[in-house]
Amino acid sequence: MEKESVEAFMGMGSYSMKGGDGPHSYALNSTAQKVGIEATKSLIQQAIANKFDPNTVSASSTTHPICIADLGCSTGPNTCISMQYIAEAIELNYQSHGLPLPELQVFFNDQLSNDFNTLFNKLPSNRNYFAAAVPGSFYGRLFPRNTLHFVHSSASLNWISKVPKEITDRNSPAWNKGRIHYANAPKEVVEAYSNQFQKDMEIFLHARAQELVGNGLMALVIPAVDDAIFYPDMCPGKDVELLGTCLVDMAKEGKVNEEKVDSFNLPLFFSPVKELKKILESNEHFTIEQTETIVANKNPFNQDNVDMYVYHHRAAMEGLIQNHFGVGIIDDLYHRFAKKVKQFPDVMDMQKRNIVALFVVLKRKLLDQ
Amino acid sequence: MEKESVEAFMGMGSYSMKGGDGPHSYALNSTAQKVGIEATKSLIQQAIANKFDPNTVSASSTTHPICIADLGCSTGPNTCISMQYIAEAIELNYQSHGLPLPELQVFFNDQLSNDFNTLFNKLPSNRNYFAAAVPGSFYGRLFPRNTLHFVHSSASLNWISKVPKEITDRNSPAWNKGRIHYANAPKEVVEAYSNQFQKDMEIFLHARAQELVGNGLMALVIPAVDDAIFYPDMCPGKDVELLGTCLVDMAKEGKVNEEKVDSFNLPLFFSPVKELKKILESNEHFTIEQTETIVANKNPFNQDNVDMYVYHHRAAMEGLIQNHFGVGIIDDLYHRFAKKVKQFPDVMDMQKRNIVALFVVLKRKLLDQ
Repeated sequence: MEKESVEAFMGMGSYSMKGGDGPHSYALNSTAQKVGIEATKSLIQQAIANKFDPNTVSASSTTHPICIADLGCSTGPNTCISMQYIAEAIELNYQSHGLPLPELQVFFNDQLSNDFNTLFNKLPSNRNYFAAAVPGSFYGRLFPRNTLHFVHSSASLNWISKVPKEITDRNSPAWNKGRIHYANAPKEVVEAYSNQFQKDMEIFLHARAQELVGNGLMALVIPAVDDAIFYPDMCPGKDVELLGTCLVDMAKEGKVNEEKVDSFNLPLFFSPVKELKKILESNEHFTIEQTETIVANKNPFNQDNVDMYVYHHRAAMEGLIQNHFGVGIIDDLYHRFAKKVKQFPDVMDMQKRNIVALFVVLKRKLLDQ
Repeated sequence: MEKESVEAFMGMGSYSMKGGDGPHSYALNSTAQKVGIEATKSLIQQAIANKFDPNTVSASSTTHPICIADLGCSTGPNTCISMQYIAEAIELNYQSHGLPLPELQVFFNDQLSNDFNTLFNKLPSNRNYFAAAVPGSFYGRLFPRNTLHFVHSSASLNWISKVPKEITDRNSPAWNKGRIHYANAPKEVVEAYSNQFQKDMEIFLHARAQELVGNGLMALVIPAVDDAIFYPDMCPGKDVELLGTCLVDMAKEGKVNEEKVDSFNLPLFFSPVKELKKILESNEHFTIEQTETIVANKNPFNQDNVDMYVYHHRAAMEGLIQNHFGVGIIDDLYHRFAKKVKQFPDVMDMQKRNIVALFVVLKRKLLDQ
């Protein structure tokens, strides 16, 4: 298995990133994801060229459109870049088969709270597809049966559907007091997250199996943990562990309520690659056409651009934090976070945090199989 | 032809109504449109029952969804109400034919500047359809060929695609100095508006003809002018004529730039019913299945609720006015407008302004006809 390299995977593709175009918006702070998208571009183009068969995937290209969905699209511009090259690769594929070009329809999906207005304003006016947006969680049905031909999702499936209930239950062994994530937490906490991830993935695959046509393709880029490497002081969630310590500090100073901190947990999980593959292999609806582990081998952040990293982080987290704590604490919290990142710059390094991405191409088995 | 009655048709369905839920938002000030929607509900239900044939409109209800589009949907809640009863009427139709229920997909369309975020938050969570939004002008293609089964558009087609160029050209006989609309303007101005409306309607029908499947239905509610009645002091655009005089007053007082007023015109046209029918009849793609003239016979506004009327008006116009004049003048302008409406309350009466709505059901001819 060839390892593709990629600058960074922050694993912050979705969960309603901060909207608009302001200085703290996702739109202005998604550089690392963009690099990730560039790295998977050629993999996806090849998958479409080799695995997407126009003759078996749709009835007739002259009367039926080819429908593409991006799940966890956020507010752009990354989704626009991906959808553009996917649309072009599909057209190229039809051309190379000597077939007339189909009309293309692209569905941009993210959660209800995503800023779709901002996304719409970023869509290129010369696009070669009809655009539509679909609000809602991809851990459930979003589209009618048998209507999608190509599904894409990048850096979104590491956001689980919800924080596991037992994490915030003080009577449970999985109660996660004084932390906002499973990073460096007791094994009960990690297991609760892991179980939720597995359930979510199964729901995701089942929903997509109904929506994709037979022989339709799905290309997923899922932030995950490399099983092979292990730095004892580091973990994939080291960044949010640091953020959690800032919140605990603020609670000690009486600036936030301690119980509020205890009840706050991030619905973010980095599955070990091996576990993730097991989940994918155990599904009955899709064949696995290709898997690649994409490693972050060059760190885009360093001591000189901590602010960029912090802005980036804030763009991804702000919505969740504000929903739980209100708007008042963000500036103070990220000021503290920036200080801690400067003290502990390794947190900016995806590779040291063992974060990789699993790139996987799945093909929907024929419906009558 | 039976005349249905309806409380009011303001003709303010689209053109990106003011978003959000604030006191001046369209969402809180669309009562008159809601009444209009209630009045057409039974007409549309009957049209679906009698003219929408599940056996000829789609290949197979078990494997293909039925796609519905609302063009000029604004931010809700009216579009949610319409889509709900249309979805239910289609299901009822399949049941009465003894056919399995198809999955339904509803596309909410409005201009790019529409507040889709607000709309998404209004969609009922227990809806019986998959929801999607499509941004863009309906005076052009919005959907792939041959994919829509039912198209709805209410109180939107009176918004033309643009102000005719000659209206703002000081060397043209159609230069519309000192007015913001064709109301009480020279015949050249009226003709320019009328020509634009006709061109737009033809483009609209041509685009929809490509998008609708053979035997697919389109139900349109188009604000128009009754040819029969004529009050000499009134016209359909009397309200915006009054609004225009407020702007001229403000220009005289130096509160707005006179040239700014001269270059501002509303892209709003109420076609005489007879002319509108001619346009519909001359198209080659659709058969006219039904037309009804809906008359406003009870006025929801009077001396006691001028403020409600003014709020309503402002919700529809604010976006256009702010785009042209900036945010500063709105409060002053609508304060003046409220005073004039109190002096001339007949302006609130749709019937006295000769405004009716043409309800029309069109059926897409089979593609090989």
